[in-house]
Parts: sequence; structure tokens; C-alpha cells
Amino acid sequence: MIDRTRGYYNEKSETMSREEREVYKKERLSEILQYGYEHSKFVRSLLIKAGLRPEEIKELKDLEKLPITKKADLVKAQKENPPFGGFETLSGKNLKRIYISPGPVFEPGERDYRDIRWAQALYASGIREGDIVLNTFNYHLTPLALMLDESLQMIGATVVPVGPGNISMLIQLMRELKVTGYIGTPSFLMAIVDAAEGMGLNLQKEIHLQTAFVGAEMFPESLRQKLEGKLHILIQQGYGTVDVGCLGYECREKKGMHIPEDVIVEIVDTETGKQLEMGATGEIVATNFIKAFPMIRFATGDLSYLIEEPCPCGRTSFRLGKILGRTDQVTKVSGIFIHPWQVDEIMHKFPMVANYQVVVTRKEYRDAMSLYIELKEEVSDPHTLKRRLEREVEETLKVKGEVIFT
Amino acid sequence: MIDRTRGYYNEKSETMSREEREVYKKERLSEILQYGYEHSKFVRSLLIKAGLRPEEIKELKDLEKLPITKKADLVKAQKENPPFGGFETLSGKNLKRIYISPGPVFEPGERDYRDIRWAQALYASGIREGDIVLNTFNYHLTPLALMLDESLQMIGATVVPVGPGNISMLIQLMRELKVTGYIGTPSFLMAIVDAAEGMGLNLQKEIHLQTAFVGAEMFPESLRQKLEGKLHILIQQGYGTVDVGCLGYECREKKGMHIPEDVIVEIVDTETGKQLEMGATGEIVATNFIKAFPMIRFATGDLSYLIEEPCPCGRTSFRLGKILGRTDQVTKVSGIFIHPWQVDEIMHKFPMVANYQVVVTRKEYRDAMSLYIELKEEVSDPHTLKRRLEREVEETLKVKGEVIFT
Repeated sequence: MIDRTRGYYNEKSETMSREEREVYKKERLSEILQYGYEHSKFVRSLLIKAGLRPEEIKELKDLEKLPITKKADLVKAQKENPPFGGFETLSGKNLKRIYISPGPVFEPGERDYRDIRWAQALYASGIREGDIVLNTFNYHLTPLALMLDESLQMIGATVVPVGPGNISMLIQLMRELKVTGYIGTPSFLMAIVDAAEGMGLNLQKEIHLQTAFVGAEMFPESLRQKLEGKLHILIQQGYGTVDVGCLGYECREKKGMHIPEDVIVEIVDTETGKQLEMGATGEIVATNFIKAFPMIRFATGDLSYLIEEPCPCGRTSFRLGKILGRTDQVTKVSGIFIHPWQVDEIMHKFPMVANYQVVVTRKEYRDAMSLYIELKEEVSDPHTLKRRLEREVEETLKVKGEVIFT
Repeated sequence: MIDRTRGYYNEKSETMSREEREVYKKERLSEILQYGYEHSKFVRSLLIKAGLRPEEIKELKDLEKLPITKKADLVKAQKENPPFGGFETLSGKNLKRIYISPGPVFEPGERDYRDIRWAQALYASGIREGDIVLNTFNYHLTPLALMLDESLQMIGATVVPVGPGNISMLIQLMRELKVTGYIGTPSFLMAIVDAAEGMGLNLQKEIHLQTAFVGAEMFPESLRQKLEGKLHILIQQGYGTVDVGCLGYECREKKGMHIPEDVIVEIVDTETGKQLEMGATGEIVATNFIKAFPMIRFATGDLSYLIEEPCPCGRTSFRLGKILGRTDQVTKVSGIFIHPWQVDEIMHKFPMVANYQVVVTRKEYRDAMSLYIELKEEVSDPHTLKRRLEREVEETLKVKGEVIFT
């Protein structure tokens, strides 16, 4: 049996000291800002708007001086300057592929650039040379499946490029080829497991999976436990977006997602764009070093926080915590932001809650928040529960809300 | 405007003399037979069954001494020796991908092998460095789309990996990215053209296609003329199968399909496996030189013939003529094989024929063939037409048939 728990894709960079990593990232940032200033209309205009020359961004902290770029800004830039919105930094013959992400945003891929971030992620998830890996992401249009295909090859694994296809055929392939690795969404893996059980298969004996790497959607802890319990394997997740690539990946310790060296991840206040302190929740903003499509402070729309403490796996990078939701799910009540993940956290403390819905209404210039709650079963003293819930809501959200049992 | 009519992907090999090519193919054949004998159980058993050692196959003509391998033989071999049926010639870490072709047949792809046959085909079709090419083949499971993706990169073109997706979105992409090349099936290109016309677009001004390469299905001359007429571009076709790869490609002269150097194509009598003379119609049988999955005399099931005369394009290879149909569409009437393409050829001489159907029945040990024919319009003298048709049928097919107008 292969030891999937130890080792690194790139030990030197994954275990460098924090000071070395900071220096490395600063150097890469200078390079990309210089390159972007010279070759990318879009990046140059960011710097000009901020009244800065690239060499004036010296520290990662200085990034705050530059504006945030949102997906909508990319779409607008590409409409105004087709096709790449001022990212035409390389001539056609240096472009390997053009990907399309929703928007649509056209994303040029550099012919000779090897992005090792997904390879680091796959290696950390346990995939090794010689593994036969089912790639169930969709190879069409968006870059994820093709990049992971390349990353699996960088590790020396063999790819079965199946896409999100016919599940009963996939199960047949997994059995006949003795597939050892899975990459795809967690929900598709669950669908495969359900179908295999439905066919009466013994998951450990007849499905030969040894490791799985999931991404591209939320991965609740409950689903992880279910899958790991049924398959008797560890399942790791990675996080990234089509526009900026891999931003974090779990190691076998599953204590947050390691941020790769070749990207800068900031957690910022969505309103001000200022970097938040370690542990505080804010929007994930990323800066990558890809010449064909350099993203400087790209706003992902996802909410998370940074973890500083060292990881027992030996990797020395900061980590991203759980993805807590989307900035666009935020609602303002009486001037205060309410995030769905905050309400989730409250409800987790009350195991008798089955479902809930938050409704915000406005009556004559005053906001009112109601929480409609469905209980798993009747409780003996609903009045006390209502009071406890309302107290918790007010303490956590700093806003009053009325609890209504439905 | 790029000159798409001249040049070669690999001038030296594409223009070598016929003697040099013969020597080159003989050398490659010796190598693969030696390699297969040593590393592939399947290939070794072919040689052993024929009572030969690899060095006893000296000339391309000697291939006749080896048995034909049919698709069904591959499926059977893989069932008996999973997963690759005795083609486990490379260790896992040397396999880049595993593809699946209907059967299913598992096809190992070698990590470091670069198959240039599709690149030759794409270059001959007019695709050049700097082209932006829509790849509409399906990237999942079968190798064609991924191999063509790689081949486009070998030429220096940029790939848009769209797959056979949403047509109205594809048209938007083609316009916004100014896509210059198309690869896919001819029927999908026709569907794109139909949709673009339905949207009221000017095909020459608003769709920027300059070249198209089609394959994976029959390409009737009538469809080519329609597409070329509407798009004002030349359209080339390539021919191959998932198991053996590219076997032929058109140049801009469109006088048959050039056979690449890195494959041996024989036209054989399906019954005896003997090579037929130049120009005679028989089954296409291919031998490739791919170590991970060496196919020796693989029967494609397709019917065609060889063209010997030199091509004005300068390429010196033999060419494959039109694909005339499938061996499995053949029917025996009174001991004589009747192929659909033969009946097609007869009917082409009678422009008034709209549709026809051949029905073979058996009455007390005697076969009877009836040809049900639908005419485009009424003819003045149906009796004479019936006689002419029946004479033509008997002369061409060497079997009597009764013509019935429906």
C-alpha cells in the first residue's frame, strides 16, 4: 500500500520559513506588476488609477493601495476591449488554449506556463505516481478539468478523462481498470457511491478507490464523514476559481486549506478593501502570477478567514478556513451586515432546529427581521426556546429578530 | 491572409520518395514487431499462431502471414486479460491517460509518445500557427478530441476546447474571439451554419472561419459543396479510428486521403486477409507503431481503395480513396457479396432515383433480390427505365435483381 500521508509535491517551497515565503511572494508580485504594467492595459490602468508605479508596491500590505477587481469588472473590460479586456499580453502563438468562464469571460492560457498549484493540491490529497485517476470534471470550456489533467500527469498519475458522464458506466470502468483515485465534485462522488450501493456492490472490495480530491462546490463536514465512512478512504478538498486557479488545498490533517506559494490570498473587508487581521472573516481576494492573464486583487465573492498556526503536516503556509458563504448572500438589517453563515452558526447550537428561513422586511423606514423556524419535533416549552433563540440572535448578529415557529 | 495551401507539417517525411517511405515503414514495422513480441502478450500470440518470429516479417507484403485482428478480438482479449488484454507493455507511470472506446476497449496512452499523424492532417487542412481553433469533438472517454487538442498545440494554434456544446453559445464565441478554424464532425458544422443563418448572420462577415477539418463520420460531396459554398472556405476531412489513430487526411487538392508515414494501411480481401491490388476495393487494415497499444493488422471494418498516382500537392504518399461503407453492411446474394456502395454507384447513374431499398429474401434454397425504388417524379416510360436499371444491376453486381417502383 502506497503511503499517501507523507511527502510534498515540492518540499523546498512547501516547507520554507514564513519569512522566506513572504520574500518569495513579494518578488513574484513585483515581477507580475512590472510585467502587467508593461504588457497589460488592464493592469496598467489599475496602477494608474491608484497613482502608483509598480515599484511602489513593496510589501504584500501595499496591495491595499490597489483597487479590487470584481468579476463584473472583467466582463465589462472584455466587452470594451475584446476579446481579453486588455489582457492581450501574449501573441497568439504563445496561447495554448482559450477557456470560457461564465460571464462569459475569455481566459487566455499560456502555452509554456506550468501552474504547479493544482499538482501540489493533488499530491497533498494523497495522489501519487502510478495512480489511475478518474477525472469527472467537465473538460469543455472551463479550465479546471484540463488543468487537473495536466497536474495529474505532472505527478505521474494516469488520467481517465471521463467527464461527468453516465454513472453506471463509470462504475464499470472503476471496477475493470481498478481505478485508485477520484477527482470531481463531492456530490458526484456521493451519486457514484449511491449507485454502487444500489447495484449491491461491496464498496471496499469491488470499488478500489484509495483517495479522492473534491472541489468546485461546498463540501459539508457531514458529507465528508458519510463518504469517508462508506469508502474507508480520506477525502481532501481544494478551493479555487476559474479566473485565478487554485487558492487552497487540504493536506491529510484537514485543518484548513494550505495556500500555495504561487498566489497571494488576502482576506479583506468587502466595503473598504482593507486587509483584515488573522482569523477575521472577510472576502477572499487573490493575486496570481500568470503572465497570460494576471489577476491583481481579484474578488472571489467567497467568504473565509486565515489560519496562522503551524500545521502538523509540515507545510508552513498560512491556511484558508472553511468557505463560509458568498458575499452576495449578505443582507443589511438596520445598517448591519447579516451573513447566512452567521445564522448557520447560531442554529447549529440548537439541534432541534430542522430548517429555518430569514426574512427581512421594511416598514416605514424601519427594518424588521423574522426567523421562521421548523423544529424536528414538538418541544415541551416553546416559549423558553423562542426566548433563548432570540437572545442568541441578538447577541451574535447585534440585531433583534423575531422567532416564529412554523 | 495566411497561405493555407502550401507547406507541410514535416516536409522531409511527407515528400520522401516511395522507396524511402517503404524502407522507413519496414524499419518501423520491424521495431514494433520486435517490441510487441517482447512486451505484448497479444502481439506475441499473433506471431506464435502464425509460426513466425518477428524478424521473419521482412517486407510489408509479409504482413499477410499474420492474422487480422478485429474489434471483437480486442474486446475478448481484454475480458480474458484485464484490463488491456495483453497490451500491458508499459508500467503505470508511463501511461498518460487511459481512453475508452466502445466495446468497451481500454486504450492505454503513452506518456512521452507524440503522435504526429493528426498534426500532419491538421496542417494539410490549412491550420497554421496563430489560428484560433474551435475543437467541437467530445473530450470525454475517447482519445480523438484530446489528441487533436495536442496536435493543434504542436502546430502552434490556440485551442478553444468547447466540445459538442450549445450551438448558440458557440456562435457567440466564434464571433467574439474571431475563431479562424473549426474541427469536428461535418454535420455539427452544418448545424452551426444553419443556426447562424437562422440568426440572420452574414456567414462571411460575421463568422470569421478560414478553415475547417472534419472527421468521425461520412462526409458526402454534396455536404462539402454546401458548406464550402456557404462559408467560402475549403473543408478537408481526415479519417481514422479510435483504436489505431489517423489513417489518412486530405490536402487542399482533395484527391483522396494521404496516408501518414507512421502507419501501414493495407486494403485486404475480408475473407482471405490477402492484400488487394492498387485501386481494388476492400477492407482497410492498419498497423501502427505505438508502443503502449501496438495494433498489428487491425481491421477497421471500413471499405476503401488505394490511389497510387502522385498528388499535385507534393506529398508522395499513397492515398486512401473515399470510404465506401462498412464491411458489416455487406450481404451475400446467391454466393456473391453485395455492398451498399456498389448499389449507390449504380443509383448515382440514374438522377431520377430519389430513394431505394434492397431487400434480399430466400425462397426454397434460392436467394431473390428486389430493389424498391422511389422516383423523384413520374417518368414517361417506366418499363424502359426498369429494364435499364435491371441490366445495370446485373452487370455491376453479377446478380439479378427485380426493380419495383414504389
